[in-house]
Amino acid sequence: MTGTTNTTTTSLNARTTALDRAHVFHSWSAQAAVKPLVIAGGLGCRVWDHDGRTYLDFSSQLVNVNIGHQHPKVVKAITDQAALLTTISPATANLARGEAARRIVARAPEGFNRVFFTNGGADAIENAIRLARLHTGRDKILSTYRSYHGNTGAAIVATGDWRRVPNEYARGHVHFFGPFLYRSEFWATTPEQECERALQHLEHVIVGEGSASIAAVLLETIPGTAGVMLPPPGYLPGVRELCDRYGIMLILDEVMCGFGRTGRWFAFEGYGVVPDLITFAKGVNSGYVPTGGVLISDPIAADFDETVFPGGLTYSGHPLAMASIVGALDAMSAEGIVQNAARIGRDVLGPALAALQAKHAIIGEVRGEGVFWALDLVADPVTRQPVGAAVMARIKAELLGRGLLPFLIDNRIHVVPPCVVTNEEVAEGIAIIDEVLALDLLA
Amino acid sequence: MTGTTNTTTTSLNARTTALDRAHVFHSWSAQAAVKPLVIAGGLGCRVWDHDGRTYLDFSSQLVNVNIGHQHPKVVKAITDQAALLTTISPATANLARGEAARRIVARAPEGFNRVFFTNGGADAIENAIRLARLHTGRDKILSTYRSYHGNTGAAIVATGDWRRVPNEYARGHVHFFGPFLYRSEFWATTPEQECERALQHLEHVIVGEGSASIAAVLLETIPGTAGVMLPPPGYLPGVRELCDRYGIMLILDEVMCGFGRTGRWFAFEGYGVVPDLITFAKGVNSGYVPTGGVLISDPIAADFDETVFPGGLTYSGHPLAMASIVGALDAMSAEGIVQNAARIGRDVLGPALAALQAKHAIIGEVRGEGVFWALDLVADPVTRQPVGAAVMARIKAELLGRGLLPFLIDNRIHVVPPCVVTNEEVAEGIAIIDEVLALDLLA
Repeated sequence: MTGTTNTTTTSLNARTTALDRAHVFHSWSAQAAVKPLVIAGGLGCRVWDHDGRTYLDFSSQLVNVNIGHQHPKVVKAITDQAALLTTISPATANLARGEAARRIVARAPEGFNRVFFTNGGADAIENAIRLARLHTGRDKILSTYRSYHGNTGAAIVATGDWRRVPNEYARGHVHFFGPFLYRSEFWATTPEQECERALQHLEHVIVGEGSASIAAVLLETIPGTAGVMLPPPGYLPGVRELCDRYGIMLILDEVMCGFGRTGRWFAFEGYGVVPDLITFAKGVNSGYVPTGGVLISDPIAADFDETVFPGGLTYSGHPLAMASIVGALDAMSAEGIVQNAARIGRDVLGPALAALQAKHAIIGEVRGEGVFWALDLVADPVTRQPVGAAVMARIKAELLGRGLLPFLIDNRIHVVPPCVVTNEEVAEGIAIIDEVLALDLLA
Repeated sequence: MTGTTNTTTTSLNARTTALDRAHVFHSWSAQAAVKPLVIAGGLGCRVWDHDGRTYLDFSSQLVNVNIGHQHPKVVKAITDQAALLTTISPATANLARGEAARRIVARAPEGFNRVFFTNGGADAIENAIRLARLHTGRDKILSTYRSYHGNTGAAIVATGDWRRVPNEYARGHVHFFGPFLYRSEFWATTPEQECERALQHLEHVIVGEGSASIAAVLLETIPGTAGVMLPPPGYLPGVRELCDRYGIMLILDEVMCGFGRTGRWFAFEGYGVVPDLITFAKGVNSGYVPTGGVLISDPIAADFDETVFPGGLTYSGHPLAMASIVGALDAMSAEGIVQNAARIGRDVLGPALAALQAKHAIIGEVRGEGVFWALDLVADPVTRQPVGAAVMARIKAELLGRGLLPFLIDNRIHVVPPCVVTNEEVAEGIAIIDEVLALDLLA
């Protein structure tokens, strides 16, 4: 991998790599295979190592740095709060916490007035599931194959990819298939058909499981890690209708797709649906300080006016994290960063990716909106056979070698730059992808 | 509750309370009953509201602010890192992360060389349980009644108090009783007898559950929230021996008791035992930035050299959190903060609490070491009947009214100031507790 080749001659890069390999246990990895890129700093859409080798960040790290790296207003908000009070118990009232909650509520639909803060997306999911179960008095959580909801007890078992399998220690989870026309589970050939059949499938699962046993349907509004699969028009309203008919809560997981990624504050605003519970993390403060939370609709919140809510954590509403939310949301509003993501998607990145697809047969499908896109790479455009791991490893090395930091999963290039990405940066990144896809990758 | 009485006349206190009550959903609470103390700032063992009303912090918040509030070296470490790079993906190598891991490993026993970083204590427990299950190929986790391990899927079901009951959605958890002579489950009358009988009980549970089904015994080295119940000499070595005999991993949860609280870096250093997995959070950086982790012994870490570890999170090894660990551990070492906690416990706080007990019949037992103590309050010293909720509410109001921020649970006053507490601050806090316990509380 590029970026580590100079580590033997450069003391800080070398020290960073040596300490990492000696002592840091890495997520979702075989440790001996970890060859991490050293990153020392960043600004906007760029990051760099200690040698000054720079990368254009088309990953937003784990699709979290929506506001870009080191936004001065967010850094200042953190620094100012650090001078006042870094941490305080969640049992207290703290101004930064109230201000953060107010700003989140102000961006939420009518009827959402309370925020329960967590440390990240996974425990936001844990608490949303908890709230849905307690509100309904029911057990089961329905979620999709081809989803990711986090790494803790219930969140990982709600997840619909391979990561669930070795972690299957939570009960009450049932999986179904969501719509995904390009690789339809329902033998559909049009978006309308995929939508209709996916809704019929969900209703069959609800009835088959026993609707009275189901607390919630949990969906990423747009499944992210699984491939940026935009729901067809009508699907989410159809799910909402099924949930209403059967007394089931609808949890929309906006951890990855929320707070600007789609060019809207919440992805669901584009799909004509309002859930009962909303989970968030990542984009709310671009991950500058670990945090996340659940937006709770009023009827569910009211359950716990007189009854103890049986959930909590030491760093719920952590002042430093809250200050970073205030700084990030204020800057995003003041600078039109969400609008920029919408504009880039519509006028710049979307068209550029469509042009790439027209040029490269390896791109089976381009999906996305805002700054949330995936290129589904195929060995054969007819059979839609995904390209293999060796091809993806080659692509990764070639992109990094040209200074582009990509987000690759399975057979896909996720094109997910920060929401602040400029026309010029898009052009630069697209040119690199274009050059790499023009290589003889399938040979 | 004191501290909020001025909110109608003071704009920032009032605004803080109003925003909190409108939008912040509180941990472990009935929301209508929440009357939060406003806290705006702090330094050392003091915190204050926007009116300048000050409290002596004998809670360390949720027993996490070991280094005291707003330690300048930790604040500076955060501010410096904020200027460089707040966040980066866990897949990269980052110098702050490596430096934090190195400092944690340097304080751990021989044979612990790898750290997996999480966002807090709960997901540290989740990952320790995951590692134990994967290492042994077994399912069950044994933990004690009278314990607390966190609020996520597996952590909350491993927990041994009322908070588990509405959250019982994880499988594979079995509870047993640990030693607690003052309220012995084993009809014991001496520490030796309590130890011997508790070990016999644990072995009976292991055999009864089927030893080959048990992945781990999970214990807080000193159960904290449940009452600062120091294990009798020999208990933890006895547990270690049982674990070794039956091929079971020993997970010691040092989230609350670790990093100085007991006057040692790790509480287990005082009990002649070395576990297989160590969970930490709170004291490692005093919670200035949300973080936690698992120290992994070499044989378990080696399992994942060539095999993918199926766990991970976006903010694993978050640079801002890592910088705060570096700042906190360096300051704790340079300033002898752990030694101060040991000295205070041995020479100042311990003797002062013993003197209080001699004076007030309501104190049934004083337990603890370092800056980690509990007063077990009883309505009757013979029957050891715990005092009721009304008495505790009165005590809380009286302590707060006198400017002491206490940590009260069930029938106990936990005396858990920061590790930097001075002789004078101990004297001041003890005088307040003395005054309050002299009131006619049981009338």
